[in-house]
Amino acid sequence: MKPARSLIPIGTATLLPDTARRVRRLEDQLLAHLACWGYREIILPTFEYLDVLSVGLAPEVLEKCYKFADWTTGRILVLRPDVTAQIARIVAMDMGGMGLPLRLSYRTTVFRYEPEHAGREREIFQVGVELVGADDPHLDAEIITLLIESLKHIGLPDFKVSLGHVGFYKVLLERTGMSEAAQKEAEFAAAHKDLPRLEQVMSQEGVPRKKAHVILEAAGRYGQDDVLQWGRKAAGRDSSLKKPLERLAKVYELLELTGVKDHILIDLGEFRGFDYYDGVVFDVFTATLGYELGGGGRYDHLLGKFGRSLPSTGFALDMDRVFAALDQREPQTADGKPPILLVGPQKLYSQTFRLAERLRKLDVHVIQETIQGEPSQFIRHARERGQSLATSTVILLGAPGLSHKVVQLLDYSSKRTRPKISQVPIQELPAMIKAQSYANL
Amino acid sequence: MKPARSLIPIGTATLLPDTARRVRRLEDQLLAHLACWGYREIILPTFEYLDVLSVGLAPEVLEKCYKFADWTTGRILVLRPDVTAQIARIVAMDMGGMGLPLRLSYRTTVFRYEPEHAGREREIFQVGVELVGADDPHLDAEIITLLIESLKHIGLPDFKVSLGHVGFYKVLLERTGMSEAAQKEAEFAAAHKDLPRLEQVMSQEGVPRKKAHVILEAAGRYGQDDVLQWGRKAAGRDSSLKKPLERLAKVYELLELTGVKDHILIDLGEFRGFDYYDGVVFDVFTATLGYELGGGGRYDHLLGKFGRSLPSTGFALDMDRVFAALDQREPQTADGKPPILLVGPQKLYSQTFRLAERLRKLDVHVIQETIQGEPSQFIRHARERGQSLATSTVILLGAPGLSHKVVQLLDYSSKRTRPKISQVPIQELPAMIKAQSYANL
Repeated sequence: MKPARSLIPIGTATLLPDTARRVRRLEDQLLAHLACWGYREIILPTFEYLDVLSVGLAPEVLEKCYKFADWTTGRILVLRPDVTAQIARIVAMDMGGMGLPLRLSYRTTVFRYEPEHAGREREIFQVGVELVGADDPHLDAEIITLLIESLKHIGLPDFKVSLGHVGFYKVLLERTGMSEAAQKEAEFAAAHKDLPRLEQVMSQEGVPRKKAHVILEAAGRYGQDDVLQWGRKAAGRDSSLKKPLERLAKVYELLELTGVKDHILIDLGEFRGFDYYDGVVFDVFTATLGYELGGGGRYDHLLGKFGRSLPSTGFALDMDRVFAALDQREPQTADGKPPILLVGPQKLYSQTFRLAERLRKLDVHVIQETIQGEPSQFIRHARERGQSLATSTVILLGAPGLSHKVVQLLDYSSKRTRPKISQVPIQELPAMIKAQSYANL
Repeated sequence: MKPARSLIPIGTATLLPDTARRVRRLEDQLLAHLACWGYREIILPTFEYLDVLSVGLAPEVLEKCYKFADWTTGRILVLRPDVTAQIARIVAMDMGGMGLPLRLSYRTTVFRYEPEHAGREREIFQVGVELVGADDPHLDAEIITLLIESLKHIGLPDFKVSLGHVGFYKVLLERTGMSEAAQKEAEFAAAHKDLPRLEQVMSQEGVPRKKAHVILEAAGRYGQDDVLQWGRKAAGRDSSLKKPLERLAKVYELLELTGVKDHILIDLGEFRGFDYYDGVVFDVFTATLGYELGGGGRYDHLLGKFGRSLPSTGFALDMDRVFAALDQREPQTADGKPPILLVGPQKLYSQTFRLAERLRKLDVHVIQETIQGEPSQFIRHARERGQSLATSTVILLGAPGLSHKVVQLLDYSSKRTRPKISQVPIQELPAMIKAQSYANL
């Protein structure tokens, strides 16, 4: 028997209402917090011309892009694989009039072919910021402090930011005289803390034992001031090693002043997965999740590739992973009550609609339904509809034996199958519903 | 000279902060309003398998899709060209557990190749709802009332909803014995109120003059009850014409009860651009814009194509057009003040950061910058930065001759080039800033 053909593209997912609500709230919290730091949201187009964007993308990212032809121009379009490169393109070409440095935020998805077969890893939802147009350790510290404060703001308690400087390790590797391809491979191994692989690459390239030892140790070490101390010793009088190290030390010192030092681990082997980083870089991770939640760093030479030289830094968070980290700490239940159900017979349609209108004006979420059949069956019917919609409250107009000024209230909030039924004058209903905080605010 | 190669894909745009802010606020207002009616947001994947989604799409829509290969499976992916078809796919395959009818909302973009060369018409931002799983004129009335109340809620005053029933006109056309292709063309002409073209098609097909006359008149007529009266006469005893007409009349009657009748124009030639509509349909338009802002209608047979038969209705709004309609009425200025700029010398970095933190906790938007150079130049420097960032307020710590407990406040709010400068004790600053509603809430 053939396996069933998949009907949903792998690596994508639909977020149903309870999840979507949480995602939107998390997103709103983050963006509001970023705004308090002066980062203003921009909304990006979903695709770009490949020939334009590609100057800002590494070959391995380009290989993972979704590409398609533009019928009108015959050129190749690419679904945004990375926001930083896209914002670099936009700032370089589009935003001449705005004062520097620019503080920008975004919430959007990036698209990449990934080998895995579950979750949303082909359409990755990100929230992030870019700080474009100035090179200053204070701004490195601002971006890292903002990242940490943002994660604290949304309630993530146990996380670390591993902080390094691309320059330090790059110079160490260049000094070995390895081929460029081998250097790339060594960077990759160091970034993934794959020390056996790193050792193997250097041995194949005939890197002298002493140099190899320093490189392995730099990749393996992480901690606080002690790592900076070790780095200073390893750098000796070599100014091209000392310079990145002193920048890193300065940023670390500022992070003490902003009060976030406890979250920092200095990691001299820290690399981000993108070629364009060329200064202080960082990853954020938790003890319990086996992958980073996001990261960022300085990319001083990226915008120059698009024709406007502007030093810049920024970070991005993978929202699905942030979500998973929050859930792991404390699985969230769907918050916010389901909408109230308001039912009435057809002849009371107008009155039922007016009542729904009054409740909605109080921000109560109300579904209105018209009830069919014999009046004697109204309560049974209302109860069934309430159960089917998994609501906490059903309000019935026109129940037999009751004046039109009184409604039947079916209260499911105690989670029993049979609701608590009471009679309430319409006059009193809105205030009562509002007071019982049925409102889904 | 060759024309410059475009660097930005045609039909796409970046929304800069002022515009992005307005778009997000409009979107939030709409989604919150839809939630009050029990419509809960879902978040959709950006692409789908073409072979799966295509059963729900008309050939002319399929031709406008962005398509690309999935390397992993060799199948063709398509960027969502239409939300209704995608939600039909998802509900039919994915959402078995949820109680019917489902009330869903969304905010997303759809992608279509369009011949025009300006604006965002290739990536169209939509907000909409679907009401899935029941066939009832009360639900037709609910969707149309919700559309009208939503547009009133966001402040759009002068708009009309043209309301028709696909069934009435389809039966009229079928009765002529025209070829299927000619019928399609006649539908298209009727939808665009292109009466000369409609007449031409019928004459080419040899439609008898009397029948052609009724079809032309149905397409040209719009109004209130009088149009329904005319339709009843035209239908005579023909039950396949009377049935759609009576459904339309019933919905119209309910719209009087919900208080939105004044916005309705009955239009018996009303067609939507999608094949899947098969009941009551509607468009919304304003007098001043030459195109519809959105629309929707009943699509009882669409979900069946994805394997689950569920009568449904819904609407979508083109947000760029809604935006344009709001702007045309009253061009909006960028609302919300720009962030405050807080500057201090390096040696006061820590104190400056603490002050920024206190202000941010009050939801004030604050950019912190470190000021360089001689203290005698601090005020000049602060003033220049304030102008460059177009802010309304600059706060300077560490101005020469002042205690560290007092800041210089540069107030640009009176729009003069030179700010009003005053001294304020740090203690009093947060309350003062908050009271002057510098907060960008």
